[in-house]
Amino acid sequence: MSSQVSPLAPIYVPDMPAIAGVRLATAAAGIKYVGRTDVLLALFEPGTTVAGVFTRSKCPSAPVEWCRDKMKTGKARALVVNSGNANAFTGKNGRDAVNFTARIASKAAGCKLNEVFLASTGVIGEPLKASAFDGVMDKMVADALPNRFLDAAKAIMTTDTFPKVATARARIGKATVTINGIAKGAGMIAPDMATMLSFIFTDAAIAAPALRSLLSDGVTDTFNAVTIDGDTSTSDTLLMFATGAAKNAPRIARASDPRLKAFKKALLQVLANLSEQVARDGEGARKLVEITVEGAVSKSSARRIAMSIANSPLVKTAIAGEDANWGRVVMAVGKAGEPADRDRLSIWFGGIRVAHKGERDPSYDEQDVSAVMKKPEISLKVALGMGKGRDRVLTCDLTKEYVAINGDYRS
Amino acid sequence: MSSQVSPLAPIYVPDMPAIAGVRLATAAAGIKYVGRTDVLLALFEPGTTVAGVFTRSKCPSAPVEWCRDKMKTGKARALVVNSGNANAFTGKNGRDAVNFTARIASKAAGCKLNEVFLASTGVIGEPLKASAFDGVMDKMVADALPNRFLDAAKAIMTTDTFPKVATARARIGKATVTINGIAKGAGMIAPDMATMLSFIFTDAAIAAPALRSLLSDGVTDTFNAVTIDGDTSTSDTLLMFATGAAKNAPRIARASDPRLKAFKKALLQVLANLSEQVARDGEGARKLVEITVEGAVSKSSARRIAMSIANSPLVKTAIAGEDANWGRVVMAVGKAGEPADRDRLSIWFGGIRVAHKGERDPSYDEQDVSAVMKKPEISLKVALGMGKGRDRVLTCDLTKEYVAINGDYRS
Repeated sequence: MSSQVSPLAPIYVPDMPAIAGVRLATAAAGIKYVGRTDVLLALFEPGTTVAGVFTRSKCPSAPVEWCRDKMKTGKARALVVNSGNANAFTGKNGRDAVNFTARIASKAAGCKLNEVFLASTGVIGEPLKASAFDGVMDKMVADALPNRFLDAAKAIMTTDTFPKVATARARIGKATVTINGIAKGAGMIAPDMATMLSFIFTDAAIAAPALRSLLSDGVTDTFNAVTIDGDTSTSDTLLMFATGAAKNAPRIARASDPRLKAFKKALLQVLANLSEQVARDGEGARKLVEITVEGAVSKSSARRIAMSIANSPLVKTAIAGEDANWGRVVMAVGKAGEPADRDRLSIWFGGIRVAHKGERDPSYDEQDVSAVMKKPEISLKVALGMGKGRDRVLTCDLTKEYVAINGDYRS
Repeated sequence: MSSQVSPLAPIYVPDMPAIAGVRLATAAAGIKYVGRTDVLLALFEPGTTVAGVFTRSKCPSAPVEWCRDKMKTGKARALVVNSGNANAFTGKNGRDAVNFTARIASKAAGCKLNEVFLASTGVIGEPLKASAFDGVMDKMVADALPNRFLDAAKAIMTTDTFPKVATARARIGKATVTINGIAKGAGMIAPDMATMLSFIFTDAAIAAPALRSLLSDGVTDTFNAVTIDGDTSTSDTLLMFATGAAKNAPRIARASDPRLKAFKKALLQVLANLSEQVARDGEGARKLVEITVEGAVSKSSARRIAMSIANSPLVKTAIAGEDANWGRVVMAVGKAGEPADRDRLSIWFGGIRVAHKGERDPSYDEQDVSAVMKKPEISLKVALGMGKGRDRVLTCDLTKEYVAINGDYRS
């Protein structure tokens, strides 16, 4: 946890309401950090459904493998998350730690083993001493309260400089339901200290398959459209829990149910808000960068080009240097390997067109662009003139602080 | 051109011999730099063959398009290279500048227009004032001398901190032939100031199709196995010229000719030497990093995993911090998307095994590893235990200086 809060941190932190059917507790188990909480326990009422999306890494952590396996039943009663140790690349010890943690949590919460979900974030390759949870589990169950979402977000931080929370309300039929989310990020990954975890809680009553479909649709243009450094964690985990405990909540079986219209919008809002906060807390970030690509041959082509720009070290360092270096944007478009024609390419920084049809736009004023580049939020737009494909991703700049955070801390 | 030479620069710079049939001249045309040469002219005797490999960028520079087009005849009489301006993303002006330069060069050299080859490196998107070449072309033709390879290497530098030259000799039949090469790099690309250019010269007599095949085979494990930042230039160009002027040189028609055995080895040596120098002069580099992946399902799978490690900002910053952070290596293996099994993975830094079969190797000594990480040259080996695929790539670390070079110079 850094002592200096990111200059891009949101100014407004919402009051997080309670969610019917969810109780939360945090504790300091001393996994790695001193003088702060590092374990979160969430308890869910019987009938709670769960869905998840996970890292595509071929070397996932032990908790990711546990969650994938237990996801089949679609039922959840407890969630245990720790910071300070990712329990990744820990072999048999890792599996033992996962089994042990699930066992003590199921016992304390009075539920089945396969209704317990787990996530860990922190150092890779160090054995996780799960016995430390044993001393705090019963007390957490006893202490758990409905309105502890900000505390929950704090307990799961690693190199994050601020806790990430978001909330929204929606109507489903006659019921008003709430969606709360918490996240941690910092680097898209920084395997020694971080990873991306997010947990979404709602009191809507939605069957597990429908919840899975909602979540999968929801991440496409939110969590999957954010990159800090192009590195992919072994532990990335996004879990969503629906307790069904909201008053008069109708039981929804299918994601296509028209009554979900407002809920889908609210869910997208929570996911977009949290994923933007992850970009805002990119390690060493001083600029939030929104990259829009339009006129590509398809949305997926636009996504690949936008990601090529967003992950280019040369584009990211130029933005850190407040330099509207569209030459590097051309390079990143060119290297994406997607259909593009230099002579149709136009590029804007902060709404100012700097390049047009394959050449520098002669009309732009260097001072105007310079003023745009000094802002903490930069929009970069590329028009390809090839088709109707459009997409948008979020990233941040690449600063010397990124190198310091990731290169200096063990030296 | 940086004032401080990379600490990884080779200590030994070879005397570059003359190549029969090649004459070189350099001049200061004042394209961008002051007080240094920025144009190279190479003249070739009639009968010289040429082959080239170019950037895969979808937005290539005007000179790249020119060379690709003129390559068809396989004949070359002149090469003009300038530094200071890449003539990329310059639209019609770029094509005009290319045509103009080729015209004055063909006139001065007394050859056909399509026997002139061109390359430019430097700023993207700024119109290249090719008229500046007009004042120096005739004098360069008059001044051209056979043994000016080091001067040639200096004239094409941009953010390079040292000129890059290599030479080797080989027997073909009864003839002794020479291969000289020059290169510039710095960033694999830094489009505002740099790109990767390399030119290979030999007095062997090799037909253009055979030369193409030799070059294409030669780059696979040399120039194509080097990455600085994963960014791909709009201008990357590697041209090879064979004059056939060596005494008694037999005319070789096919790359499969057994008389080429020693020549192939010597060519590989020159290409490997030059591409390693490019990595050694990576922008801000303090460590040369050799990444070997073995036990992959195929060589191409090993290459993709090695490149995923080599391009990972988190691996590169860890090495900059002299931290044998194998957790990040696991992450980079995992994100490559290639077949891998965490529980069979082993990782070595400088020959010391730090992770074995999915866990930290309990036997390694932190102090030994620490000593290895302090060296300027680091070897990193990953064994996957999946098959027999093996590959090796070169890269460098990611330092604050990289960010400074690429982020600060216009601010």
